[in-house]
Amino acid sequence: MAPKIPIRMYLAEDEMPQSWYNLKAVMKEKPDPILHPGTLQPVTHADMEPVFCKETVKQELDDTNPLVPIPDGIREFYRAYRPSPLVRAYFLEKELGTPAEIYYKFEGTNTSGSHKLNSAGAQAYYAQEEGLTSLATETGAGQWGTAMAMACAFYGLKLTVYMVKVSSEQKPYRKALMEAYGAGVIPSPSNTTESGRKILEGDPNTGGSLGCAISEAIETAVKTEKCRYVLGSVLNHVLLHQTVIGLEAKLMMDKYGIKPDIVIGCAGGGSNLGGLIAPFMGDKIAGKLNSRFIAVEPASCPSFTRGRYAYDFGDTAKTTPLMRMQTLGNGFIPSSNHAGGLRYHGMSSILSKLYHDGLIEARAEVQTDVFDAALRFMKTEGILPAPESSHAIKAAIDEAIECKRTGEKKVILFGLSGTGYFDMTAYMAYNNKTMSDYIPTDADLQKGFASIPDIPQNG
Amino acid sequence: MAPKIPIRMYLAEDEMPQSWYNLKAVMKEKPDPILHPGTLQPVTHADMEPVFCKETVKQELDDTNPLVPIPDGIREFYRAYRPSPLVRAYFLEKELGTPAEIYYKFEGTNTSGSHKLNSAGAQAYYAQEEGLTSLATETGAGQWGTAMAMACAFYGLKLTVYMVKVSSEQKPYRKALMEAYGAGVIPSPSNTTESGRKILEGDPNTGGSLGCAISEAIETAVKTEKCRYVLGSVLNHVLLHQTVIGLEAKLMMDKYGIKPDIVIGCAGGGSNLGGLIAPFMGDKIAGKLNSRFIAVEPASCPSFTRGRYAYDFGDTAKTTPLMRMQTLGNGFIPSSNHAGGLRYHGMSSILSKLYHDGLIEARAEVQTDVFDAALRFMKTEGILPAPESSHAIKAAIDEAIECKRTGEKKVILFGLSGTGYFDMTAYMAYNNKTMSDYIPTDADLQKGFASIPDIPQNG
Repeated sequence: MAPKIPIRMYLAEDEMPQSWYNLKAVMKEKPDPILHPGTLQPVTHADMEPVFCKETVKQELDDTNPLVPIPDGIREFYRAYRPSPLVRAYFLEKELGTPAEIYYKFEGTNTSGSHKLNSAGAQAYYAQEEGLTSLATETGAGQWGTAMAMACAFYGLKLTVYMVKVSSEQKPYRKALMEAYGAGVIPSPSNTTESGRKILEGDPNTGGSLGCAISEAIETAVKTEKCRYVLGSVLNHVLLHQTVIGLEAKLMMDKYGIKPDIVIGCAGGGSNLGGLIAPFMGDKIAGKLNSRFIAVEPASCPSFTRGRYAYDFGDTAKTTPLMRMQTLGNGFIPSSNHAGGLRYHGMSSILSKLYHDGLIEARAEVQTDVFDAALRFMKTEGILPAPESSHAIKAAIDEAIECKRTGEKKVILFGLSGTGYFDMTAYMAYNNKTMSDYIPTDADLQKGFASIPDIPQNG
Repeated sequence: MAPKIPIRMYLAEDEMPQSWYNLKAVMKEKPDPILHPGTLQPVTHADMEPVFCKETVKQELDDTNPLVPIPDGIREFYRAYRPSPLVRAYFLEKELGTPAEIYYKFEGTNTSGSHKLNSAGAQAYYAQEEGLTSLATETGAGQWGTAMAMACAFYGLKLTVYMVKVSSEQKPYRKALMEAYGAGVIPSPSNTTESGRKILEGDPNTGGSLGCAISEAIETAVKTEKCRYVLGSVLNHVLLHQTVIGLEAKLMMDKYGIKPDIVIGCAGGGSNLGGLIAPFMGDKIAGKLNSRFIAVEPASCPSFTRGRYAYDFGDTAKTTPLMRMQTLGNGFIPSSNHAGGLRYHGMSSILSKLYHDGLIEARAEVQTDVFDAALRFMKTEGILPAPESSHAIKAAIDEAIECKRTGEKKVILFGLSGTGYFDMTAYMAYNNKTMSDYIPTDADLQKGFASIPDIPQNG
């Protein structure tokens, strides 16, 4: 008889993953290479090293090594808050009356409140090992900035965070948390950089944007001695670090003989989804697993379901290398949405390629439906989910209800990437029934697509 | 060789405690009985049952059964968020350079953010079993109200929370969280009760007080059909439910052959401290353990260190039974302090008796010192502590530093009762160096003592 599955499963310290899982190396069809925006040639290590830490550049461009050892110094950091639990959602299953088994990997037990710490710790470690003294980054919703602040406090690095101005005003507590960890938080656009000053000259009252904050952070990193830039999503090395999520989940499931029929994650830039699915997708590619994979995005920012698969810039100022990805166009401005972490025009090139090849499904959801699911989850499972993560909850509940209809006893695994402690304004809007949503029209999308660069590779 | 102690220790589901630990039954010298304020005779079950659930009244007055079985229906609730981890503070130890071993039991991993859920779940379960349909309570800082909202959502009960008005205005997100769980939150004083209306007549602009909110909640419970009142601290049955903390900690420590030399907890009404120390204190009383026990309270509300051991009311309106306890007088108004959960004039009668008999030490700390310790902790251990819990951190660090001085390798265990996600205004005040503290003068204390009732038992 199979062992009874407890509500919460933990790995012992010595069972924790010793390597990350390089999905790109396992994929038969590789994502198209990152291009230098000037030459339109594949970027080299030398192109990227003025901006990023050397080791992360190596990881970014590594197509060949399926397993990348996690250094002891990072494993020590991980042990401070990992393993994160894999939870069987018995209470939710009961409330739904579904024959499905629902599991979620919960990444919100650390103070940053999300999975972002997995890559923040790795990137801060490499910076310190390389002899750098400071880092610069940007943050919109705030999870990434908080994670970097924690990691830099741990490794003794200075950190400057450019926080989208409107976000720093709306989320003073997020800002305070980063500051408590010793980070310098600068509302963006600011007069500390050329790109910031330029934007302020044009519009002194602007609330800022992620694109602008990225430009300011990169400029600061490049101009400051012993400083580099760090990014919390989209890039291959970020997804690599996040595979610790999927690896832990798979180890725990293997222990109990569980194989997921469906794996679900929310998707903004793709770091949480990519990290969760990586080892399962590897098994699927190898013909050892027959799971479905579902990406869930907000209907207001539908880069998978309504975007184009094209080379595009990562930022609105068009300063980054070009990546071939599902994109709404770097000029697309998603409407206000409480899932700030999912408001991004593009998508990880790895996930975009998998979607393009039919290995990942995607669906888009409206906010009120997402919060209906969040409330159903928090009242049964007890955890206050982040608006971002609640997109995955919505799809998991829908699949479980479908199982009830068909009588199938499927195994559903989803990523609960974070908690909603700093998102109570969203819950208040939901409670007060003042939550709205803007779904872009086809005309809106055409305007966004017009910003996609007109280069031969897109022809 | 002893097994290497991991950073985080968890019990398996089947190792979790099956009974609570009734410390009162184990104490050789019992606390003095609770008195009826009219007759000055020990209260009976019949006196208390109009206000509290039957089963909790039984527990409140039970002096004889050392082990009280935890019903399956409550163990199921506990399994939704327990066991909570016992953590070895390796990173903090290293930063302090202490030979001491520091451990903390972390009760903040659930959405309510504190240990309060342990008693909320138990009280809601008993209410539902008794056939009640609703409960009423009050909340100041908000942890207890949130815990009750979660428990009532789980067991399908209606909940009314009287939230101190100034607190509901200062912490709109706490209020929103309770409302998201379906609780009705009423700023107190309100016009929904006689006692509320009376206070509003006298002072329409009052910000309210915990004493007033208690009166409104009790009035509502007594006047509503199938409704009772629930309290989150001070009372014996609340401490009983909280012993799950100490029992889990002890089971884990026993597993690794660890015996604490010092056990530390913050103390407001005593629920967290009493729950943590119970089984260790039982061993000490039985001569099997030679630990020290330290209660840490705010210098602005020093009921242990500067209070009197006397019969007093639990509320400022003088409506509750009389308990013999360490008290500053029911009329004592503690100055504003960010550790809202420690702003109470009295103290659990069990802990008061232990203190009176020399089995517990106590110390009082000022806010800025407490936040110095909190920051040191969060930068090394990664967890954002509640201001209340940070009092225990302060004492644990002081004891570890003392070990460094003496070279002693003591084992220190402290209770990390909760997280600080809803206390960022406190961290902002600390960061901005605008945090102040008012330590009551002897004259202030005399004024408070004057409100202690003049009855023969106090003579």
